[in-house]
Amino acid sequence: MDKRIERTRHEVLSAAIALLGERGYAAFNMEAIADKAGVSKSTLYRHWPTKVSLIADALNTLNVQPRPGPADGTVRERVTILLRHLTEALTASPFASCIPGLIEATKHHPEVADFLYDYSARRRERLVALLRDGVAAGELPADFDAETAATALSGAIFYRCLMTPDPYQAKDVPALVALVLGSQGGT
Amino acid sequence: MDKRIERTRHEVLSAAIALLGERGYAAFNMEAIADKAGVSKSTLYRHWPTKVSLIADALNTLNVQPRPGPADGTVRERVTILLRHLTEALTASPFASCIPGLIEATKHHPEVADFLYDYSARRRERLVALLRDGVAAGELPADFDAETAATALSGAIFYRCLMTPDPYQAKDVPALVALVLGSQGGT
Repeated sequence: MDKRIERTRHEVLSAAIALLGERGYAAFNMEAIADKAGVSKSTLYRHWPTKVSLIADALNTLNVQPRPGPADGTVRERVTILLRHLTEALTASPFASCIPGLIEATKHHPEVADFLYDYSARRRERLVALLRDGVAAGELPADFDAETAATALSGAIFYRCLMTPDPYQAKDVPALVALVLGSQGGT
Repeated sequence: MDKRIERTRHEVLSAAIALLGERGYAAFNMEAIADKAGVSKSTLYRHWPTKVSLIADALNTLNVQPRPGPADGTVRERVTILLRHLTEALTASPFASCIPGLIEATKHHPEVADFLYDYSARRRERLVALLRDGVAAGELPADFDAETAATALSGAIFYRCLMTPDPYQAKDVPALVALVLGSQGGT
């Protein structure tokens, strides 16, 4: 029974992401999701009272950020793992096709801005924490600006996805990491 | 007479940018621009046969990128001038409010994708050229990756504008330039 509930939940979340990617936020509605996932609208509202609560749950459940630790290598290597995941999320996954619509919706729907800004901040936090570990371990210089670096690294990947026909691929990440982390501080 | 034509042209372009920012690309139409600028629809179509040709003319005319040269200081200083302009364009100007709608429209309207990708590439070119001047002048290391650096610099500024409640201001640019250009190569 629990498994069936979990499967249904997954179907609802996948349907929500797919519809959001196709239609954008304004045209995305609970009725269409209920139809697509084969559940009743009242079930949907019982679990997700608002469109944005459903989107938040879908992105958190379906786009799981890796949590690289010391066993995964140097801080540079762990940063590379995190950023490779971001390039994959922004190319292959249904998540990628939602981003433009969510960005547009931040302008007209304050609840979407609150969600997207908070979501991005939490994703960036893991990168900032890794960079600070690099400073603590002596892999990065003591005055390394982890916040600015996390913005430049994430920003480069989002920029290539949103503003060019040529999104960063996983293979492009090492050059970006080398540029932003520099060769100072040793490995 | 020429002055009057120029003034009218400016009014049409300003109206187009304002409406695009308010409504997004799909709801943005020639009729509303003609009304807002006080010209006939046939005049509009004679000068700008498509919505995207009008947007292109408006962004190129109203958002003029500076062209810092040797008289403006070191390459680092010239890069800072260019990026300060970008932060201003993405905060204060009507241009800023168009970007989310244009990004969303790239997904559904190939002509918008062609325009936005080409426009961004041309804007980035000036930054890449400056960084290459920095390499030639010995201000940046010989193996400096100008393309990746231009993407990280522009990307950080767009990311803060689109994905956070706190866009970069002109005063934040020096820390970004210091991080991405590093302290190698001397000034």
